[in-house]
Order: sequence, then structure tokens, then C-alpha cells
Amino acid sequence: MSPIYIALVHYPVVNKHGEIVTTSVTNFDIHDLARTSATYGVQQCFFVTPNLAQQHMLQYIHDYWREGFGAEYNPDRKEAFSKVRIATDISQTCLTIKKAHGTEPKVFATTAKKTEKPLSFKELKDRLDTQQPVLLLFGTGWGLAPELLEKVDGILEPIVGPTDYNHLPVRSAVAVVLDRLLGVKS
Amino acid sequence: MSPIYIALVHYPVVNKHGEIVTTSVTNFDIHDLARTSATYGVQQCFFVTPNLAQQHMLQYIHDYWREGFGAEYNPDRKEAFSKVRIATDISQTCLTIKKAHGTEPKVFATTAKKTEKPLSFKELKDRLDTQQPVLLLFGTGWGLAPELLEKVDGILEPIVGPTDYNHLPVRSAVAVVLDRLLGVKS
Repeated sequence: MSPIYIALVHYPVVNKHGEIVTTSVTNFDIHDLARTSATYGVQQCFFVTPNLAQQHMLQYIHDYWREGFGAEYNPDRKEAFSKVRIATDISQTCLTIKKAHGTEPKVFATTAKKTEKPLSFKELKDRLDTQQPVLLLFGTGWGLAPELLEKVDGILEPIVGPTDYNHLPVRSAVAVVLDRLLGVKS
Repeated sequence: MSPIYIALVHYPVVNKHGEIVTTSVTNFDIHDLARTSATYGVQQCFFVTPNLAQQHMLQYIHDYWREGFGAEYNPDRKEAFSKVRIATDISQTCLTIKKAHGTEPKVFATTAKKTEKPLSFKELKDRLDTQQPVLLLFGTGWGLAPELLEKVDGILEPIVGPTDYNHLPVRSAVAVVLDRLLGVKS
């Protein structure tokens, strides 16, 4: 089984006008992705932002729940925050994963939009049956920048329900993607 | 296909000490459950609280996104908020559903804990193949109160990943449950 990593990308992403922007880190994303990562056995969850002030805020929140009062108040949350990592960009994220496993991860992007030749969930699941680590990218704002989508090893098909509405919160999208890939069903 | 309703319950739920409490409404829950409900074609998403001040806050946020500046700024969010309803308790929720369909809903609870004879996702999915409306209850805090679990028509098995960690955010649990029941997979 491939070790699975996820990254929540705050740059490069697009805003509602399609411009490349850096989004702000959302506190709920840190908590929710940490807890979801712990549930589904994700190795690490990277919060990717080039903004130093945002990195410092991430570190402060991380330390509060790992070592501060939060760790004592809620040990389950302390456990979840062991999954949280901070990275400047995706290259640094890949390098960290390479250092842990001796090999670069395969990088797959997620998107709410229809793209040409997307990977189905089944195809991606089949590819997890190796030793090579896998990094799944999730975009904030209005999604991952096109320049990033061009560079990855594959783009996962969008999550679809029985409607045309495709504006799931990224927190929910992460949970659904991990559940479809790693969930245990009786 | 049964019309599906969900309710996020703020009373009666338990706190970390197992005491029955009323939790506060979380703004992110309103947005995330509205968007997830719109994605998966849920009829309505009820926010259940007996606290009048909390009901007023819910109404204020609802109106901002349905009729205020929010509706103009983000029409997708306006659409999602059409799913949001406010209710004092679960009886009132059931009555509203009965008025719409002429029949009481079947009520199923969710929990992160193991219970005796839970319904599997497959069993619940099979039961959606009728005209009778279905109401799924999700708990805030440390989960739905035991007195409530005793009254429902069934308790859904917990969401399980390949770990022992069972502290998914309720926002993520709602998305995963709806995806398992209603998601469209290629």
C-alpha cells in the first residue's frame, strides 16, 4: 500500500475571477483536515503557503494543540495535529516526502471541474497498490491554478452527487476523496 | 427514491463528560452543510436548537446569504442556503417534513461509536428505495444524547477508516455519509 500524503494548497490557486492568488489559511481547515487525516491514516497533511505570517500562524496553532493547553484539554485533537505539516511550496512538500521514503511521490490533483482524461477513483485506488508514496493536492479559493494542473501525474475526477451543484467545501471534499479511496465499508 | 432530509442537532447532545447539553451553532457548519446538501440533493438541512438567540443568529446568517449582500456576492452560496432551515426540536422538524409529504419521515441517527445492531450503509441505502421521507440526524458536541438514540428507527454504523481514530468533524461526517448513500461514482 502506498503511503498517502495530502496537501492543502494556498498558492498557486485561482480566485473567482480566475486570477492567480494566495489565499489565507482557514483555522477550521487545519482542525478538520488534521482529524480527517488521522481517521483515514494519511501520513501527513501539508498546509502549503509561501506567506511567512501565515506559516507562523500555522505553527502557533500547531504548537498550541501539540504542546500547549490544547494538548491537555483535548488529547484526541493533539493526536490529530501530529498529522499537520507546514510547507512553503509543493516542491518542498515533495522533498520532505522523498526524504522519508527515498523516492519522489506521485502527485495527483483534485478539482471540482470537468477535465480531459481524468483519473477515476477506481483507477487511482488501483495505483495505491505500490510502495511509491502518493501526494493528493487540494485547492483553496476557486481551485488549483491551471499551471499546477499541467504539471501533476494525474487529475482525479470531480466528486459528483445527483445534482449539478459542484461547490463542496474543501474540508468535505478531502473527507469524501479519502473515504472513497481508503474508507472501510462493512 | 425517498426524499432525504438531514438535521444537525444542538440539543440533546452530550459533552465530553457525557452530560446532556445544548451546543452553540458553528458558522462553518451552516455553510458546509448547506453546500454539501446542495451537492447531494438533500431536500432541506435543519439546524436544531431550542435557544432563541441561536435561532435568531441562524436566521440572520440565512437572510444575509439569501437576500443580503452575500446573495449578490456569491450566487452559489445563495443557492446552497436555500437548503437551510431552523427548528426548535426534532418533533418540529418531523412535523415540517410531514406537512411536505403527508407522511412522517423515518428517522435514522448517526454516531461515531459502536452500537448494538447498527444499520449498515448498504441496508440504509436499500431503504431509500421508497416514497417515504428519511431524516438523518447528526450530533454536535460529543454526539447525540442516548435518550435520542433510543427513539429513532435505526442507528447507522459509524464511518470507519483504516485506523482507530474516530473523531471526524461533523461537517466531514455529513459529507461522507451522503456520499456513501447518494454519491455518483464512475
